[in-house]
Amino acid sequence: MKKVSLMGATGSIGLQTLDVIREHPEEFKLTAMSVGKNIEKARKMIMEFSPRLVSVQYKEDAESLSREFPSSIKILHGEEGLVEVACHQDADVLVNAVLGSVGLYPTLQAIEAGKTIAIANKETLVTAGHLVMEAAKRKGTSLLPVDSEHSAIFQALQGEKEKNIEKLIITASGGSFRDRTRDELVGVTVHEALNHPNWSMGAKITIDSASMMNKGLEVIEAHWLFDMPYDQISVVQHRESIIHSMIQFHDSSVMAQLGTPDMRVPIQYALTYPDRFHRPGKRLDLVEIGKLHFEEMDLDRFRCLAFAYDAGRIGGSMTTVLNAANEASVALFLDNKISFLDIERNIEKAMNAHKVIHKPDLETIYEIDLHTRRLVSSWL
Amino acid sequence: MKKVSLMGATGSIGLQTLDVIREHPEEFKLTAMSVGKNIEKARKMIMEFSPRLVSVQYKEDAESLSREFPSSIKILHGEEGLVEVACHQDADVLVNAVLGSVGLYPTLQAIEAGKTIAIANKETLVTAGHLVMEAAKRKGTSLLPVDSEHSAIFQALQGEKEKNIEKLIITASGGSFRDRTRDELVGVTVHEALNHPNWSMGAKITIDSASMMNKGLEVIEAHWLFDMPYDQISVVQHRESIIHSMIQFHDSSVMAQLGTPDMRVPIQYALTYPDRFHRPGKRLDLVEIGKLHFEEMDLDRFRCLAFAYDAGRIGGSMTTVLNAANEASVALFLDNKISFLDIERNIEKAMNAHKVIHKPDLETIYEIDLHTRRLVSSWL
Repeated sequence: MKKVSLMGATGSIGLQTLDVIREHPEEFKLTAMSVGKNIEKARKMIMEFSPRLVSVQYKEDAESLSREFPSSIKILHGEEGLVEVACHQDADVLVNAVLGSVGLYPTLQAIEAGKTIAIANKETLVTAGHLVMEAAKRKGTSLLPVDSEHSAIFQALQGEKEKNIEKLIITASGGSFRDRTRDELVGVTVHEALNHPNWSMGAKITIDSASMMNKGLEVIEAHWLFDMPYDQISVVQHRESIIHSMIQFHDSSVMAQLGTPDMRVPIQYALTYPDRFHRPGKRLDLVEIGKLHFEEMDLDRFRCLAFAYDAGRIGGSMTTVLNAANEASVALFLDNKISFLDIERNIEKAMNAHKVIHKPDLETIYEIDLHTRRLVSSWL
Repeated sequence: MKKVSLMGATGSIGLQTLDVIREHPEEFKLTAMSVGKNIEKARKMIMEFSPRLVSVQYKEDAESLSREFPSSIKILHGEEGLVEVACHQDADVLVNAVLGSVGLYPTLQAIEAGKTIAIANKETLVTAGHLVMEAAKRKGTSLLPVDSEHSAIFQALQGEKEKNIEKLIITASGGSFRDRTRDELVGVTVHEALNHPNWSMGAKITIDSASMMNKGLEVIEAHWLFDMPYDQISVVQHRESIIHSMIQFHDSSVMAQLGTPDMRVPIQYALTYPDRFHRPGKRLDLVEIGKLHFEEMDLDRFRCLAFAYDAGRIGGSMTTVLNAANEASVALFLDNKISFLDIERNIEKAMNAHKVIHKPDLETIYEIDLHTRRLVSSWL
């Protein structure tokens, strides 16, 4: 029985993590979880899974839930509560499925507490990869990727040696706007951007997919997770999202992981690693699919991906700026305050305005993150 | 420095094994080799690689070579010589690249001698898989596949547990006649059959590819190498031969090995396993290829594949009959003595005429093999 602590239970990855736990009642037990503001969902989850610890965003919600449930279920709130979920003593593995750089501090605390971490929260690695990887290395912590692309690379790496990697090949569906020209991106609506062709995901990541920033964040995430120079990470458009990513080894052999687009597969793999458990559900049927397509990624049309490579190569605090400008701009776009193409304009402006600090500490990262968000707001 | 013994040096796999040795003079040394009748090639190889032991098919050739080369190079002939090559005391690994069931006895002897075996000689496993695998298990011998399909499965299996395999998915280019109807197979010439769309291989395997018997032999080989029931081995037509084969695990995840069609990659992998060495040459470029196609395998059109599944499921001596009838018939077809479709007719007739013996011993296998070949000749 593996005890699971889950940060971000009501998000897309969180809900699918609960699916996996539900499907394997003999193997997994939810021991702690955090949610944000969705108290109605939290209530149902507490009733179904009886975790020992729950953390919510606001104090009032915590107090209200405390009155409803027996005192054996500890209810906390705020960042302090989130950190307690991240470091819960009973947990064998922490699934970090929160959104955005808010996941950074609890992740660092979980590493210090010696937790194995299944990480779906790519912004944590983008904003402070050097701090996270340094801490993980020092503590001997396993960071298990949950993103389908990084899980694919991680699976392809089993039984192999990192020294033999020649190149990582990350596949990209192309997102909602893959068949539009740049001119056709002017004035696209939030509704259009949220219509992802392959994957059912949260709003932020779906917008990131449409702008190709999601692929950019993944490139930076791969850089940190697999200690790979940016020149050895390539992106290829693959509209079917069947090959989830690949490793090219220096004997020219390429190892790939394939599957139907179902996030529960990589989530479950992170929970069962290095073993695999049976999963119900549809199997990949390549004959039914018939054709897999591969196209060059257009870095002129998808400028966010180019910015991510730039920020990654510059390094230091530049990826913090990239991520914060993106998070702030996506929130404004989802709120109909700016246009879709404003997202990339804001990122470019914020990066141009930034003077890089090398190896920033946590405090500096928080300052830069906050400063960048304020800067983006000031452009409204 | 790994010392390599090579059976079948002048065949397609043999020549490419020598390419790999030539490309890595610091890592590999040819210590022993066997050739058949091609003494001119053998002479050049001896001069280039200075093996300590050479075996040829005929006594006269052995005597002639003995006169030409210093006595430090031992020259033998016949089956006795082949067994000495297979079991050469200096060799760290034996590459078995002979053609047909003639490879069986030396393979069994090499297993008894405790050699690691890189096996390209699929007929050995088809004709007597139970004997080979029983001996390998008893002696703790590693059988490393060289066939691109089995190498792909073997690579995908690294870091994984066999118990988690749900299905092996073997890909098939479709061979020279993949776009012909059954009617269009009547009267095809040897020249047409030898024109394989993707791979440059020896004549026998190219004919086997055209008849789809090669895929049938591979299914049986996979059954033995990976201890997999026939119901869990499927074949899918994939005309580009880029995905070399796949494993579907019971969590629904599929691991695949991809690459350009170059047999030196799996040969080298078997020699460097579990490590990988750098290889020169072309890298896979999926964007350049653009599309990968997958089609259902038509068992009515490709009856040899259906026969192979039948023979495998029946088991016992039936696969010996399948293989012997095929070897004899392909030789007759290459000699313009029978038509292309006579190959499958002969196999069907030979299988129908055979009364299965379960767990046949080596002597029985040889008898059945010889009897089947004579039977096929008697139908001329």
